[in-house]
Amino acid sequence: MDLGEKAAVTSGSSFWRSTAVTGVPDIMLTDGPHGVRKALPDTTELLASEPSTCFPPAVALGSTWDPALARRVGEALGDEARAMDVQVLLGPGINLKRSPLGGRNFEYFAEDPLLTGVLAVEWVNGLQSRGVGASLKHYAVNSQETDRMRVSADVDERTLREIYLRAFQRVVTRAKPWTVMCAYNRVNGVLASQHHWLLTEVLRGEWGYEGLVVSDWGAVADRVEAVRAGLDLTMPGPDPDGDRRLVEAVRSGALDESTLDTAVSRVAELVRVALAARDPGATFDANAHHALAREVAGRGIVLLKNDNTTLPLQAGCGPIAVLGEYARTPRYQGGGSSQINPTRLDNALDEITALADGPVTFAPGYDDVDAAVALARDAAVAIVFAGTDRETEGADRDSIDLPPAHVELIERVAAANPRTVVVLSNGAVLRTGPWDAAVPAVVEGWLLGQAGGGAIADVLFGRVNPSGRLTETIPLQLPDHPSYLDFPGEAGHVRYGEGVFVGYRGFDARRQQVAYPFGHGLSYTTFAYGEATATATADGLLVRLSVTNTGERDGREVVQAYVSLPGSAVRRAPRELKAFANVAVPAGATVEVELAIARDDLAYWDTRVSRWIVEGGTYQVEIGASSRDLRVTATAAVDGDDARVPLTGESTIAEWLSDPRGAQALGEVFASLAAGGEAGAMAATASNPEMLTLMGSLPLSRLAVFAGEAFSPAAIEKLSSTVN
Amino acid sequence: MDLGEKAAVTSGSSFWRSTAVTGVPDIMLTDGPHGVRKALPDTTELLASEPSTCFPPAVALGSTWDPALARRVGEALGDEARAMDVQVLLGPGINLKRSPLGGRNFEYFAEDPLLTGVLAVEWVNGLQSRGVGASLKHYAVNSQETDRMRVSADVDERTLREIYLRAFQRVVTRAKPWTVMCAYNRVNGVLASQHHWLLTEVLRGEWGYEGLVVSDWGAVADRVEAVRAGLDLTMPGPDPDGDRRLVEAVRSGALDESTLDTAVSRVAELVRVALAARDPGATFDANAHHALAREVAGRGIVLLKNDNTTLPLQAGCGPIAVLGEYARTPRYQGGGSSQINPTRLDNALDEITALADGPVTFAPGYDDVDAAVALARDAAVAIVFAGTDRETEGADRDSIDLPPAHVELIERVAAANPRTVVVLSNGAVLRTGPWDAAVPAVVEGWLLGQAGGGAIADVLFGRVNPSGRLTETIPLQLPDHPSYLDFPGEAGHVRYGEGVFVGYRGFDARRQQVAYPFGHGLSYTTFAYGEATATATADGLLVRLSVTNTGERDGREVVQAYVSLPGSAVRRAPRELKAFANVAVPAGATVEVELAIARDDLAYWDTRVSRWIVEGGTYQVEIGASSRDLRVTATAAVDGDDARVPLTGESTIAEWLSDPRGAQALGEVFASLAAGGEAGAMAATASNPEMLTLMGSLPLSRLAVFAGEAFSPAAIEKLSSTVN
Repeated sequence: MDLGEKAAVTSGSSFWRSTAVTGVPDIMLTDGPHGVRKALPDTTELLASEPSTCFPPAVALGSTWDPALARRVGEALGDEARAMDVQVLLGPGINLKRSPLGGRNFEYFAEDPLLTGVLAVEWVNGLQSRGVGASLKHYAVNSQETDRMRVSADVDERTLREIYLRAFQRVVTRAKPWTVMCAYNRVNGVLASQHHWLLTEVLRGEWGYEGLVVSDWGAVADRVEAVRAGLDLTMPGPDPDGDRRLVEAVRSGALDESTLDTAVSRVAELVRVALAARDPGATFDANAHHALAREVAGRGIVLLKNDNTTLPLQAGCGPIAVLGEYARTPRYQGGGSSQINPTRLDNALDEITALADGPVTFAPGYDDVDAAVALARDAAVAIVFAGTDRETEGADRDSIDLPPAHVELIERVAAANPRTVVVLSNGAVLRTGPWDAAVPAVVEGWLLGQAGGGAIADVLFGRVNPSGRLTETIPLQLPDHPSYLDFPGEAGHVRYGEGVFVGYRGFDARRQQVAYPFGHGLSYTTFAYGEATATATADGLLVRLSVTNTGERDGREVVQAYVSLPGSAVRRAPRELKAFANVAVPAGATVEVELAIARDDLAYWDTRVSRWIVEGGTYQVEIGASSRDLRVTATAAVDGDDARVPLTGESTIAEWLSDPRGAQALGEVFASLAAGGEAGAMAATASNPEMLTLMGSLPLSRLAVFAGEAFSPAAIEKLSSTVN
Repeated sequence: MDLGEKAAVTSGSSFWRSTAVTGVPDIMLTDGPHGVRKALPDTTELLASEPSTCFPPAVALGSTWDPALARRVGEALGDEARAMDVQVLLGPGINLKRSPLGGRNFEYFAEDPLLTGVLAVEWVNGLQSRGVGASLKHYAVNSQETDRMRVSADVDERTLREIYLRAFQRVVTRAKPWTVMCAYNRVNGVLASQHHWLLTEVLRGEWGYEGLVVSDWGAVADRVEAVRAGLDLTMPGPDPDGDRRLVEAVRSGALDESTLDTAVSRVAELVRVALAARDPGATFDANAHHALAREVAGRGIVLLKNDNTTLPLQAGCGPIAVLGEYARTPRYQGGGSSQINPTRLDNALDEITALADGPVTFAPGYDDVDAAVALARDAAVAIVFAGTDRETEGADRDSIDLPPAHVELIERVAAANPRTVVVLSNGAVLRTGPWDAAVPAVVEGWLLGQAGGGAIADVLFGRVNPSGRLTETIPLQLPDHPSYLDFPGEAGHVRYGEGVFVGYRGFDARRQQVAYPFGHGLSYTTFAYGEATATATADGLLVRLSVTNTGERDGREVVQAYVSLPGSAVRRAPRELKAFANVAVPAGATVEVELAIARDDLAYWDTRVSRWIVEGGTYQVEIGASSRDLRVTATAAVDGDDARVPLTGESTIAEWLSDPRGAQALGEVFASLAAGGEAGAMAATASNPEMLTLMGSLPLSRLAVFAGEAFSPAAIEKLSSTVN
């Protein structure tokens, strides 16, 4: 392979294919993540594609809180990709939902990194079990669409590690995705596509990643910088000008040829593995996949509110008025690169009609509220479909409100018929107030993919007992949200000012009321929690409890374990999700639940020592049905890691005095100074309680201007060596 | 002067004196800011000092909202300093009150930079009119005590400019303080004492400062770095080791001798000016200054709550129960370097007794609640003194709650006597709930200096009609505060995550309820606001309105003008204080009020062009008695500054298309591409509305990988040159 070929193979040959060179064929990479969007040939319409199953977008898959389902979706996507001769599917999307305004939130799982990571691990495992590579994206801190190609996400390292990189770390280390896709944006001023620290030091150096890093489409500004940073494949292409610059950089010595060779070898290895797994005869079962899409959609629906008499509906309960165009023309996916050309498309109106066993009337509603109200008045129950159509890649939302016409429809229908159910269609959190006070039941239907219509009917009629849970907090109003003051930023920067207090972490820290908390979701049955025990092991914590279905229907409970360390030396959220279990519990039955919390999930990122540190102490595990419906608490003592910082001249007087060896050594120096003039005597008083308030924060080395030679650099070095 | 002398003169010779060398005598610098704290000779007790007047600390002086009073206090301090042979008084302290927990908030004026700056300008003018130099401190971003010698205040530039540097800018440019004192902390990673950008580029380069920069005591870690950054005088001293290193640095060429010469010349010039103004025979009138201290204290008291029948008290109204030790043993100043040895000390109990014209009983209260309750039961009115003693330099508070014993005292006394008045003594904001619901009147008495006892009596009995106003928002609970999630930071960093949304700016932006808003304060009379007009002038805005005293007592109104620009292109607080007037209005009278808003106070800091920019548009001026008691609104159209950013390859497709010339030029390129193959044709669709959502954020230069040569660097440079 000559130098020109080496350069060429590190970019695409077209929009969706890598470049074939001597010894290295090309492969196809195609958009995901909730379907295989294989572009039609011979079209300049970016979004025209072959039919494939539109599974529920991540917003709904995430709401299942079920890794096993995520795996099955991954497997099905792998089957479709293989049948369509696609070698890498561009997903999963695991960016954190920092703000409810994020235009692409519907493609992401949650506002919590653990939940995101656990689901994405199984999705990747499922996909790659079929010989199709995942592309873990968008690495990293791509939590908005506004100015997405330039904006710098300005985020401190602890937040970066604990929140925005955490799910990537989990998936990279546990599922080994074939590829990782860099993000468009900058991270602390440097383009993610050219970010050596992100792409090489952290991803490969710390996490041991051995796969390929591909750019998001158009993310690379400078091919040489990108290769130097650790990016292997720039997409799309061809990019002869960039190839030329790479060749020149190697020839001039500006870029080590070995660096380019590394990228080339990773492309070659990806192609080798991908083509070895290729199966030209593969097909997929569209009907089975549609059924899976319906099952997942039903599991992703979140019952926000129910008075326990309105839902579930009984077949034959009387006339049902279905109101709102989204019942007939479903809003089932978002806009942009994830947009699927579905194999089928169900709508809720037909599916409700099929299950109703009685008259079903319909009005489109939003433009024709009077007609809808009239139907509602004559019905036994009214079902209002409301929602938004603004979710798309490329643009953030500017509001979390329902359109005024939808709110009017809800309120007028509810006034006409007290048995009114609201079904929402939306890609990200909507404000539910004040209108939800007027209705007895609210069903959060997200974007549910091509089979969502049937899934909604399943939940309404109780064929599926709802078990979906919120992966995002629903605030009372947008200004309450932790991200509110700095989203989406301005002038090329977005400051992640809330730090680690993202989502429920922030609402809890500030003791704010919310509309519906993280983890919330109702069932048609009820569950009781038994006493819990927590046991510290070498691997972390093991939590055990029993959960009993105390109602009369089979159901699923999502048992959530939130951890805190009272008295922690670092600022932490009041509680953080550290484990969960999704358990089926037959009516009247009791199941034993075991929640394993990995030790490394207890760690915080310590910026003083640049390491993950598990702080020693008695951890509290609160277990419940949501982040604000905590049923039982268990505690366990955990041994901590050693994070002692050596005493130096930059350590303060108070730090020296709080260390037994430091206090003794310093005390001796102070005693020797007490006889030595004004400044010396003053320094000698530094350890008096009164003076300690004023002088305790003084780094020891600054005492030089108070007490001279006793605190010269040499003297301090000697002092330090005796105590460290 | 030899090199050794040059080095020596740039540090102190002792704790409080500069160093005398050939041709340059020494001067004395001494702690302020609300009194002259001249240390006693021959003592090693840092805080022992000669008697001087303890004026109300800045927390109370700020609450007067009266620049004329600030000037008179400055003059009196100047008289005292001169009489005590002090050449530089270390004040005013103008750091922003970022958090109510700030341990030194009592030494600072406000959570608003305009209010802080306006008051400090007159304070400096007053002081310096007496031939004594001010030391504007602590420059900069020293809004906490925790880890104050090391912590890095991590703050974005717009916030730095608009909030944390703004008052410094105002005072430096308008009052020309003889000295500016650098802060202890780091700003964005660099020690303020060694921060070239702060001390030289901004302070001198942009603001034209010609005075001397002195270190806070012990703030310098490296004398050479400090001099190089623009620090002239390191305190305290002597520091022979540092002198030696300075000499070595000059000799080795590491430091330009001219840089050291500049510092030396500034010291020499300060000494020259200071000694020329010296007056060995000067004295001061302690009685007159005590009277001034009482006047200012009375004007700084804020009447938070009053039912209009409880206060003012009538002499001879019946038995008065005074409850709480602070009535007898006043809490009148904070701890640390500002601690004054007062010439006299009044207490409220004696002063109330003097005005009561009837029986006054007393119980210390906090440890003896039953006795206090018994007295309250038998009294016509009960006055409970409550507060905190935790405010001190060197330590931040960890709570804004009253001590539980004080809350119990209030609640039990209020239960025993419905006519209960609470008088607070505190250096910074306290939570007033839920106990304030139980009492008809709350008087915020801050720390009022040595004559505060009389001032409290003056207000209680209506000898002074209260006109003090809050310079800080009182939140309902600490977690509501904008600074809450990251104060005081950890591991050496404090992230100013709320950005420009400090204090009321944040509460307003997030539409939060508060206990008492910024600018709030009641009077014993009432005021009506007439219609307002706003006129744009070359200098800014001129706002005119009339204010009528509609009650039966003479009073003062603090008329506040808050400005906003609806539809601004940058994120701004919903309203910002831009002018205020403190006007005396006799009962029944009407006064005309004129508020001048400087044009540069309308500007925001534009990080794209690194300049202050006045955005063009129709500004809204809301005028009222507090930030949430807005009475009238006026608008005025203001011409904007030019802030156009040239179109380049880094400009996005959307930015090109939104510029008329850019759109035309780009349209021609797209048209030429449409016939040129898949990628070219795709690029040509980028301006279609549907595609623009996805591709609009693409910097033009990135189109190279889509459409090749048409967007090569050379092609874009040509394109740019035709449109800029």
